Amino acid sequence: MKTVSVTASRNYNILIDSGLLPQLGAQVAALGNIQTVALVSETNVYPLYGKQVEDSLRRAGLNVVSFVFPAGESSKNAHVYLELVNFLAKNRLTRTDALVALGGGVVGDLTGFAAATYLRGIRFVQVPTTLLAAVDSSVGGKTAIDLEVGKNLVGAFWQPSLVLCDTDTLDTLPREIFLDGCAEVIKYAILYDGDFFHYLASTGPGFDKAYVIERCVTMKRDVVARDEFDTGERRLLNLGHTVGHGVEAKSNFTLSHGKSVAIGTAIIARSAVNYQLLSQECAIKIENLLREFCLPVRTQDSAKELASFALSDKKRTGDTVSLVVPRAIGRCEILTTPVEELENFIQAGL
Amino acid sequence: MKTVSVTASRNYNILIDSGLLPQLGAQVAALGNIQTVALVSETNVYPLYGKQVEDSLRRAGLNVVSFVFPAGESSKNAHVYLELVNFLAKNRLTRTDALVALGGGVVGDLTGFAAATYLRGIRFVQVPTTLLAAVDSSVGGKTAIDLEVGKNLVGAFWQPSLVLCDTDTLDTLPREIFLDGCAEVIKYAILYDGDFFHYLASTGPGFDKAYVIERCVTMKRDVVARDEFDTGERRLLNLGHTVGHGVEAKSNFTLSHGKSVAIGTAIIARSAVNYQLLSQECAIKIENLLREFCLPVRTQDSAKELASFALSDKKRTGDTVSLVVPRAIGRCEILTTPVEELENFIQAGL
Repeated sequence: MKTVSVTASRNYNILIDSGLLPQLGAQVAALGNIQTVALVSETNVYPLYGKQVEDSLRRAGLNVVSFVFPAGESSKNAHVYLELVNFLAKNRLTRTDALVALGGGVVGDLTGFAAATYLRGIRFVQVPTTLLAAVDSSVGGKTAIDLEVGKNLVGAFWQPSLVLCDTDTLDTLPREIFLDGCAEVIKYAILYDGDFFHYLASTGPGFDKAYVIERCVTMKRDVVARDEFDTGERRLLNLGHTVGHGVEAKSNFTLSHGKSVAIGTAIIARSAVNYQLLSQECAIKIENLLREFCLPVRTQDSAKELASFALSDKKRTGDTVSLVVPRAIGRCEILTTPVEELENFIQAGL
Repeated sequence: MKTVSVTASRNYNILIDSGLLPQLGAQVAALGNIQTVALVSETNVYPLYGKQVEDSLRRAGLNVVSFVFPAGESSKNAHVYLELVNFLAKNRLTRTDALVALGGGVVGDLTGFAAATYLRGIRFVQVPTTLLAAVDSSVGGKTAIDLEVGKNLVGAFWQPSLVLCDTDTLDTLPREIFLDGCAEVIKYAILYDGDFFHYLASTGPGFDKAYVIERCVTMKRDVVARDEFDTGERRLLNLGHTVGHGVEAKSNFTLSHGKSVAIGTAIIARSAVNYQLLSQECAIKIENLLREFCLPVRTQDSAKELASFALSDKKRTGDTVSLVVPRAIGRCEILTTPVEELENFIQAGL
């Protein structure tokens, strides 16, 4: 078993291995002083692993109540959030009880926000079952729900007490969903590690899952330790996201997060070339790696539309927007861009 | 002007004086880097001070948008909260902008929770216009909304960036609302300061407002500095509240918070006598002081009903409940009570 230890406002371990799910109950019970666990999952994942997880928790002597909501990004909204906190209240979970998020990023973000706010904060455990959640959203304590105006506009910083990643769960992922997570894996490579970038180029989607997850969460862990509350360096993790969120919202969330981020990353890379911030060669390598993972690199959306979405995003600060721009494979920078320049910058990369 | 400085996860000043409202704009602008302020208030307070506050903010060069909701505890709910965060998103407030809460505890708690969660947290300023908010809820960073199951079940710890208390606003308070706040003032006296208790007994409701507010927030400041996240000593501030919340909920929130807390305090004092934790003489002094402030000390509710409400309260931890019990005037203790003993304990004080 690989263990990555995170130091933040709450310290916790990320456990990565195949065959881990049956150990969940013992690991959760070891957190101490928990009577009831609310298992939160969705309609795709719960039928696959719900019973196994409930059994494991009960074997460890924990009382379990389960909350299952319709699968999909459209469930990451205020309505489902309120149903969940009301469910916790009706089941009288106390401050020392805990939530377990079993699923992908939608489950993790929503459960995390409920954990952050129910009784002003109770503990929660992330059990990511998608590559995207395993390498990115389950680590670092960003929780959120979407508003109609935009994604992740309401949330909190709230660290999990444990992340348990059973790599076997990734084997049941539809290939589309697996590739979706690869967009975030590639993001880490572009941000921090040219060697890792070349490893991914050499393996393609057949990479060693436990190794790749450990590598990504370690990179994320190190950033979060230096900037937990996203006021500086952590904003680098938004590579591809400011434009990507616009692509995703413009599609009315019919285009996946990973594909949207892939498009956002490719646009920013091409813009960077046109603004002489990145070599043409690097931009082509980035596009080629995204293509190797069957990810899209172009959109029909206009720069005007994408800029408009980006302005309702959290990256805006007064009259500027922070864009993450690659300067080389393995090195990116935050570019503070005036609001009125954003459309031109995006246009340069379409 | 009296200034009380608070040290917590965010440091801030509490300013107390008559005639402070016109200075609000300059004080908010001095927080730095704010473009837009969302003023949040309710239908009783906004007509009295809204325009004056907006003018002051605009004079300081700030853009102002105002959100006004129906007065009353029943507005401290998820629906109004979601309206508010959607309002912030539609007005595109950014992470460096700020909210101003103009009103009593309902406005402060709701605005604070919106500030804690919009974009994962932006700054907010408390401008309390009730005695209750001035001496208690505006300080210390507890924010919350009510669920149908119970009060304050969803919220966050989120410190204000400034508390500005213009004592003139208390002069327009209906006498009932003013006396309501006195219940919290008396709470601080019972908790921490026998001399202050005797001062209140000597003045009755005609006390020096700036002095009393400074005294109360200083006591609260010192507790919050030692236990910001309410895992130990801060729970003492719940004196009268565990039972009081039950009385308040049982009345369907037709009985005010202060009156409910007064009843809760008197019940706990009488229970403490019957459990030989407090002298009869002290309990009588407490009842007499509450009566001197025209506050109620008895309820028709049954111990069974009040215990049931208390169990859905946040003070529950597994199979015990933390009750705050006076041991003398100026000294209280947390009594960890088994869930099954709670009804008997309350019964002893009815």
